[in-house]
Amino acid sequence: MTDPENTSPGPLSGLRIVEFASFVAGPSGGMSLAQLGADVIRVDPIGGNIDYRRWPLASSGDSFYWTSLNRGKRSVAIDVRSAEGRELLLALATAPGPDAGLVVDNNVGRPWFSYQVLAQRRADVIRIHIEGTAGGGAAVDYTVNTAVGIADMTGPADSPHPVNHVLPAWDLIAGQTATTALLAALHRRNRSGAGSYVQIALADVALAAVANLGWLSEAAQDGNRARHGNYMYGSFGVDFATSDGRRLMLVALTPRQWTAIGLATGTANVFAALEESLSADFATDEGRYAHREVIAAVLRPWFAAHTFDETDKALTDAGALWGPYRTMAGVVADHRAGTASETVLVDVEQPGIGSVISSSSPVRFDKSYSGSAPAARLGQHTDDVLSEVLGLSDADLGRLHDAGTVS
Amino acid sequence: MTDPENTSPGPLSGLRIVEFASFVAGPSGGMSLAQLGADVIRVDPIGGNIDYRRWPLASSGDSFYWTSLNRGKRSVAIDVRSAEGRELLLALATAPGPDAGLVVDNNVGRPWFSYQVLAQRRADVIRIHIEGTAGGGAAVDYTVNTAVGIADMTGPADSPHPVNHVLPAWDLIAGQTATTALLAALHRRNRSGAGSYVQIALADVALAAVANLGWLSEAAQDGNRARHGNYMYGSFGVDFATSDGRRLMLVALTPRQWTAIGLATGTANVFAALEESLSADFATDEGRYAHREVIAAVLRPWFAAHTFDETDKALTDAGALWGPYRTMAGVVADHRAGTASETVLVDVEQPGIGSVISSSSPVRFDKSYSGSAPAARLGQHTDDVLSEVLGLSDADLGRLHDAGTVS
Repeated sequence: MTDPENTSPGPLSGLRIVEFASFVAGPSGGMSLAQLGADVIRVDPIGGNIDYRRWPLASSGDSFYWTSLNRGKRSVAIDVRSAEGRELLLALATAPGPDAGLVVDNNVGRPWFSYQVLAQRRADVIRIHIEGTAGGGAAVDYTVNTAVGIADMTGPADSPHPVNHVLPAWDLIAGQTATTALLAALHRRNRSGAGSYVQIALADVALAAVANLGWLSEAAQDGNRARHGNYMYGSFGVDFATSDGRRLMLVALTPRQWTAIGLATGTANVFAALEESLSADFATDEGRYAHREVIAAVLRPWFAAHTFDETDKALTDAGALWGPYRTMAGVVADHRAGTASETVLVDVEQPGIGSVISSSSPVRFDKSYSGSAPAARLGQHTDDVLSEVLGLSDADLGRLHDAGTVS
Repeated sequence: MTDPENTSPGPLSGLRIVEFASFVAGPSGGMSLAQLGADVIRVDPIGGNIDYRRWPLASSGDSFYWTSLNRGKRSVAIDVRSAEGRELLLALATAPGPDAGLVVDNNVGRPWFSYQVLAQRRADVIRIHIEGTAGGGAAVDYTVNTAVGIADMTGPADSPHPVNHVLPAWDLIAGQTATTALLAALHRRNRSGAGSYVQIALADVALAAVANLGWLSEAAQDGNRARHGNYMYGSFGVDFATSDGRRLMLVALTPRQWTAIGLATGTANVFAALEESLSADFATDEGRYAHREVIAAVLRPWFAAHTFDETDKALTDAGALWGPYRTMAGVVADHRAGTASETVLVDVEQPGIGSVISSSSPVRFDKSYSGSAPAARLGQHTDDVLSEVLGLSDADLGRLHDAGTVS
């Protein structure tokens, strides 16, 4: 990935990673590694994998989804149903060198691509395998999120049913878990020479997270947490509407942030009197949480009587912790107007589509953003990669193209 | 972290990481590194940081949140308001050695702990700094999630308002982004000798994600995506209720998964006839998504007439992609009964609380789970760490304790 202002090669420059994965988890991880400077070679079947045309689509018919999740990678297209195609992929994945033999995949039911096969060809290969459940069973973000209790906790307090996520959070967490695991395995290999077979189940990522947040122990002790709508759990946080129809999220996680709210809205004396009448202490998380509804009721008229801009000024001047609600189109509008100073976002020319709103890596090294790059055309780098990594000649490549083994 | 079945030291064994962070993002990342074998030293102010008693709480008053997010780390408590305390922390963070000088923090307004100060003491220090916004402004998961358009897209189709997440997804993604960045920086340092100052803003993590999913380009082209309740976007997926009051999420992302649904529910002929009358092709993502409501309507009576167990059998036998809805208490019950074979979950004795439901890392190396460990008592390792890393004598430590500089 390059950006005119950032010409350094990135901390992972020199690593070669073969990505044979589809959808979000594996590819988002692979893209992160590419943004950090690695040469990530994404291998797809000829014509693309199951995710190649996934929605949302550009009006050109190309997939915004695929082209956004696979930026800056090299693209190789191989007929992986043929013996010769499989041999090419295995050779790519296990090509020698201390910075190669790094594989990210999420395949099911492809025994010819097992760790054993890879390790036979390269004993110190590192394979990061993402799966649905720990037994290798099928699961996706949308089924895992319901199974670990998140949908049941989410949604308006009066919703009769659980509310699903739209954001595939588990996929994104799993992607960064996979990149962490790959770099950890590489660290070990650099020290010891040993390869690794690493498995990460999406269901395990989710179960570990709800355990890590203490929510399983909470449920074991107290039973299920009632749905509490847009209120933040365990302290004070909720949304408010302004006089001009905007909405904001206001949060007080610290005593200072709480005091700022009273200051900004002129309600400090109201809350002082309330604390006394309720024998409560709003300077504490538990005091604010227990009385969140009356606190919100006291604040609501103030926001309803002020515009968003007035609210912004008052809250910001007072040092309150808050953020606006925006729609996705609102994020786009702010980006186009340059009003939000969200310089992680960058426009990129995507062949076949045109200008798309893309992003640098959120990881800034030495205060610089990585910049972005377009996604490759499918098979754009097949010849380059096969000649560079496997030493295939033009004649070899011609034969493979003619046979339909590569594209 | 140890487990009777897994005695290998972990791929990051030997690394020493100083974590001076609070809440979820930094600490969840630090815990992942500890689970991978690193010595993670979490430094807190005396008496704990702002997150030490965050909800949910055990009936003992200890925090399930803190003890679940900080398992397996060493705990050091230092009065970081004193010059001598700050000196101790800086010395810990910049102690020499190729496997040290690794810092994860999320501090605001502590110039004595800046990268410049750290780098003056150790030129190749690696500092991973997590912040709210890229300018260093305050932001938390709950404000970022609303600002990047996610809350607006989430919730029942008829909900008049945006619906907040309960899961702090951005914090968890940021935590794994931080661990990836740390290991990438270490990789570079091992090769080049150079340290790194790395910044990760929570707001950037979220903006990058919605860009990476193609959602900003979609909104730029089509405007906002309407809220569509529990329907999965872009293919077929939605929830159904069974005759015995259970709920499941059913998904068809591939033609085979779609065929399985018709097979399991005896509706293949209905859908064939519908395809003809609608001139639709349900074998495609777009065909299924466009007609998701009538597809769901056709399927709903079948699920309403069958129990969860009958549904489980039929869907599983047919090879459908589905998952149950569980409450958090349901996850706990299945864990206790051993019915779900979710062996990533492990029980741990947490001093002060008792048995808690904890988790191994979701990352399995060589097919083994890492096991888990309790969280330390605050300051449990202060003396060990200060003597081991800084060479302080018993007399030094005694003086520091007496002065209230450490605990």
